[in-house]
Amino acid sequence: MIRAGIVGGTGYTGVELLRLLLPHPEVTVQVITSRAEAGERVDTHFPNLRGMCDLCYTAPDPEILAKLDVVFFATPHGVAMDSAPELLAHDVRVIDLGADFRLADAEVFAHWYGMAHRAPEALRAACYGLPEYFREHIAQSRLIANPGCYPTAVILGFAPLLEAGLLHQDTLIADCKSGVSGAGRTGRVNLIVPEAADSVAAYGVSGHRHRPEIEATLSKLSGETIELQFTPHLMPMIRGIHATLYGQLQQPLSDAALQALFAERYAQEPFVDVLPFGSHPATRSVRGANVCRIAVHQPRPGQVVVLSVIDNLVKGAAGQAVQNMNRMFALPESLGLTQIALLP
Amino acid sequence: MIRAGIVGGTGYTGVELLRLLLPHPEVTVQVITSRAEAGERVDTHFPNLRGMCDLCYTAPDPEILAKLDVVFFATPHGVAMDSAPELLAHDVRVIDLGADFRLADAEVFAHWYGMAHRAPEALRAACYGLPEYFREHIAQSRLIANPGCYPTAVILGFAPLLEAGLLHQDTLIADCKSGVSGAGRTGRVNLIVPEAADSVAAYGVSGHRHRPEIEATLSKLSGETIELQFTPHLMPMIRGIHATLYGQLQQPLSDAALQALFAERYAQEPFVDVLPFGSHPATRSVRGANVCRIAVHQPRPGQVVVLSVIDNLVKGAAGQAVQNMNRMFALPESLGLTQIALLP
Amino acid sequence: MIRAGIVGGTGYTGVELLRLLLPHPEVTVQVITSRAEAGERVDTHFPNLRGMCDLCYTAPDPEILAKLDVVFFATPHGVAMDSAPELLAHDVRVIDLGADFRLADAEVFAHWYGMAHRAPEALRAACYGLPEYFREHIAQSRLIANPGCYPTAVILGFAPLLEAGLLHQDTLIADCKSGVSGAGRTGRVNLIVPEAADSVAAYGVSGHRHRPEIEATLSKLSGETIELQFTPHLMPMIRGIHATLYGQLQQPLSDAALQALFAERYAQEPFVDVLPFGSHPATRSVRGANVCRIAVHQPRPGQVVVLSVIDNLVKGAAGQAVQNMNRMFALPESLGLTQIALLP
Amino acid sequence: MIRAGIVGGTGYTGVELLRLLLPHPEVTVQVITSRAEAGERVDTHFPNLRGMCDLCYTAPDPEILAKLDVVFFATPHGVAMDSAPELLAHDVRVIDLGADFRLADAEVFAHWYGMAHRAPEALRAACYGLPEYFREHIAQSRLIANPGCYPTAVILGFAPLLEAGLLHQDTLIADCKSGVSGAGRTGRVNLIVPEAADSVAAYGVSGHRHRPEIEATLSKLSGETIELQFTPHLMPMIRGIHATLYGQLQQPLSDAALQALFAERYAQEPFVDVLPFGSHPATRSVRGANVCRIAVHQPRPGQVVVLSVIDNLVKGAAGQAVQNMNRMFALPESLGLTQIALLP
Repeated sequence: MIRAGIVGGTGYTGVELLRLLLPHPEVTVQVITSRAEAGERVDTHFPNLRGMCDLCYTAPDPEILAKLDVVFFATPHGVAMDSAPELLAHDVRVIDLGADFRLADAEVFAHWYGMAHRAPEALRAACYGLPEYFREHIAQSRLIANPGCYPTAVILGFAPLLEAGLLHQDTLIADCKSGVSGAGRTGRVNLIVPEAADSVAAYGVSGHRHRPEIEATLSKLSGETIELQFTPHLMPMIRGIHATLYGQLQQPLSDAALQALFAERYAQEPFVDVLPFGSHPATRSVRGANVCRIAVHQPRPGQVVVLSVIDNLVKGAAGQAVQNMNRMFALPESLGLTQIALLP
Repeated sequence: MIRAGIVGGTGYTGVELLRLLLPHPEVTVQVITSRAEAGERVDTHFPNLRGMCDLCYTAPDPEILAKLDVVFFATPHGVAMDSAPELLAHDVRVIDLGADFRLADAEVFAHWYGMAHRAPEALRAACYGLPEYFREHIAQSRLIANPGCYPTAVILGFAPLLEAGLLHQDTLIADCKSGVSGAGRTGRVNLIVPEAADSVAAYGVSGHRHRPEIEATLSKLSGETIELQFTPHLMPMIRGIHATLYGQLQQPLSDAALQALFAERYAQEPFVDVLPFGSHPATRSVRGANVCRIAVHQPRPGQVVVLSVIDNLVKGAAGQAVQNMNRMFALPESLGLTQIALLP
Repeated sequence: MIRAGIVGGTGYTGVELLRLLLPHPEVTVQVITSRAEAGERVDTHFPNLRGMCDLCYTAPDPEILAKLDVVFFATPHGVAMDSAPELLAHDVRVIDLGADFRLADAEVFAHWYGMAHRAPEALRAACYGLPEYFREHIAQSRLIANPGCYPTAVILGFAPLLEAGLLHQDTLIADCKSGVSGAGRTGRVNLIVPEAADSVAAYGVSGHRHRPEIEATLSKLSGETIELQFTPHLMPMIRGIHATLYGQLQQPLSDAALQALFAERYAQEPFVDVLPFGSHPATRSVRGANVCRIAVHQPRPGQVVVLSVIDNLVKGAAGQAVQNMNRMFALPESLGLTQIALLP
Repeated sequence: MIRAGIVGGTGYTGVELLRLLLPHPEVTVQVITSRAEAGERVDTHFPNLRGMCDLCYTAPDPEILAKLDVVFFATPHGVAMDSAPELLAHDVRVIDLGADFRLADAEVFAHWYGMAHRAPEALRAACYGLPEYFREHIAQSRLIANPGCYPTAVILGFAPLLEAGLLHQDTLIADCKSGVSGAGRTGRVNLIVPEAADSVAAYGVSGHRHRPEIEATLSKLSGETIELQFTPHLMPMIRGIHATLYGQLQQPLSDAALQALFAERYAQEPFVDVLPFGSHPATRSVRGANVCRIAVHQPRPGQVVVLSVIDNLVKGAAGQAVQNMNRMFALPESLGLTQIALLP
């Protein structure tokens, strides 16, 4: 059994990790930390876990964490970078669900996150944990940067086209819609029901931290410098991301050829589902499931629209983290991740 | 492996049965029927099942159904009663998620459902499938009337008090709040988002079909004639029932004694969770899970308030049906039913 | 023109007062205060007011307030009591939308609000501002305690029965459902969309500050000591209160007589709408409107159920405050209050 | 007083017309038609109107309609075209909130709406009722094609840039998000709460009837042939459209110049509100109000993003219709249209 720990267990990615790890046949969660809630039972904060989990929060203790096999960081940026090096030195594998190791360039990180990177060596060793594109590297890595929720949806939708060099690079647009859980479990006025329910608004249109992450990864996959317009919107729903992706073909391509490109690229992927050409996936079709559903359109010749939906807390966070863990420990990648989406 | 069929597979209880039965280790779903959708893949209607289910709908065929081990009816009232007798004659077990066999008295059925009962003999043989109170009978039965969603929440909350003879019988009130999925997957104007979202209203205040079902069951459990005021409300949410139950104690009882009554009654029940005295369970704590969470209050001496929440599609329908099936086939009652509620 | 001021203008009752007062033909809002936002334009915080309001927040200044005709306090309890006496001394009328003057008994106030009352003399002079029952007193008062949102819905629904002495006093139950805006514009985790949307829960079942307010007022109207069970629930919606009220008749009464009692009591009331017997009012039918809609049921002989809905921010707060203001200044009571509810 | 009639008064645009016209100081609504509901009071269907409206539905009667001053058609396409010619012949002004007269080219209409146009002469006489761009023509017209909801939001957002010839014509994208009321008051399964709440999906990506309407109008305003990618999405909310518009500048332009372009274009418009550069308008800021709020961004040099929000039932339908009526009858354009948006 893999002995696992979760640092920062009071947010939504923390409880979602528990939902997936508690029934996982090869994992035992031994530690979950929270300074503020140390000593309290986890299920008093997350009553969905009553009867399933006897854990109590503890203050993070490096010595205890050092004895585990894997530690998940479900923390704001700036936390994992301070602990990861020591854990790695003790041969503990680390999966950071925060942003500390997503941007390979420490200066880019500093620019977007407003702090110097304090573990540049670990940053160089980190692997971007998107299994569909970096599977082999993940298997050999001991430090995983779990992708952001928006980047997961956007990259999975754009990458087949960019790998094949089919798109004009200067016209990419990702118009993304996210449920409110993507903003975290935090008491901000703009997230309360009277503000965020029954309304839609964009945010961060002029710049959002997930843009450089998307651009860097797509650039790597395409071998070109990719810039895109990324526009996030807050939706009056709890879970889910819907990415609407726009690109211009460099040369004519039939609908069938477009569809085949996606179908073949993801044919062997357990967690990417390519729908029939011209479909409209709904976020509810992935609620609670570790899957990305994708549909391709070509409304006018040369104009490609890709629709890509995920559950931001599962394929966009905790589920992908477990998928990475499975890979790191040479387990079947789908182990413990075959929950069917909750619909309705 | 238990060979199972689902009659009426295009509604919410149908898809929820599939969500629970497809991964069930002792069940293989062999048939799912729908006249209107015969020949179509189930996952075109319920995209959450893509990759999990290759079934196509078929028109109901008595000969095929007769070769199964168990048939679930996820149909409106009036359907199961016409098919159940023949299936029983072929030694097929039947679990009706509709209302045909819930009211033991055929005349009461006729009054509330506006049709004569066409299978009175089967009705006499049917067992009310609330495992927490009729477990032994269920094990020996071949025809199960799966309880209504409201009755499940209300009976589990009131029964410990009534079994013990603690309440005045003429002051019982069940003020119930249900998500819209309880009204079924049907295109009625009053259920569309602009009508039913961001609003609350009661319905059926002067009489609702679940009242006689609740009263009959509580009367049976208490040995007295129980009448209650049952007030259902439609909530702007998808899943969940919150029952707020009011009763007057016949004699003083301490808070601790009240709590002990519930805690002891349900101590061995895997799917009834008694919260600490004075708690406030939220429906989201049971979303997608086969559990009823209950909390007891005594705001003033003698005034008892019980809060009881379930997911109407799980413990209030499909999950309870699987629990009954497990019992009928002598499987562990929790098999395939330990999903953790999806929160948030 | 009435010169009006609003103290505490950054919450939902503050912006709702502006929505009603800005177009009011006999009012000019001259001051709106907020220490934290002093100097900022109001419409940067409430963009619905853009083009309608050039006001900026100011820090509260007693000298400026003393020159107004009326000051509305849209503040937490404990604020109005410190300012009201001086304003009254300067002949400024005061309408407190908070709780400082709702409980006539200072000791009861201290018990429920956890602070001594610091203006007991003003408290004695205050009038409970429910126009349907205290209209004459309001007209002569200079300090109005604007009723709480739950009390408004509950009292308007119960009072006709209690004034007539028709109910057993010991069986009253008010099961109330409120939208989240009732909790105020405050960044609490339990109010954010992932926590409070798509879920229902009760709160304060064992005791809530609105209970003594309801009990005191109903006792005053009935001439008896009224105790009731009051159970508030948080609904996944923005605005609206639905009160489901239960009582037992002391003697038989026909449905027609019950209906006539309500119809006659409120026949002349512009803001109480009695629906046909057995109706089910929805909160959306009053969204944004200063009206209480009421329907009466008698499911079994002697068991009365009253359904009463309001918009908590209008008839339950700002609208009622303007209604009181109109009364105090001898204006037509409906002036500026005839907005049609927004449906859908 | 203008004598007005509404044909097709059981949908959301019908009730919204009533909300605006009933208190309008220069209008008296004399007729509202519905074949199915003839004889029934309007307020039994729309309880928000109780106390405000004594009208009953009638079957449409050409003779009665012919005596009115103006008739609003709140009907599906194909209805107004059969009645408008006769009404015009009787000197009745017509405002069609449906699609019959929006596309000037009868063949384009036939292609997108699947029916031949049966009133081509009236079509030629019709004026597209977007006052901000066709104000003078509206004043002289007797038949108004009230714009679609999506087109209103998109055109108001794109037109200043296209009038000025600033954008590359082949890169326009309108990614639009609509509340469910845009689909009408109709009992379709995909609109009920369990399907459409707490989820987001696109629809009609490969082609939607509002695209040719947008393209024709923008082409007219720019003097060029405009093609755009239009992607509608269904949002889990009741009212509101959020249009996110993308374009590429043909030549560099400073942020200040971009902002000035919009600010100046709409400086005199009572119902278009240009927010400060880089703002993020929310649909709730226009809920119930006849206003379009617009914000401009330039995330990277040359990449323009315009955010445009309206209430689909007000500025996107009934409010704009009243604005057109005011114009046609030489009334102040804002008369009866200054409601403040309901927030929260």
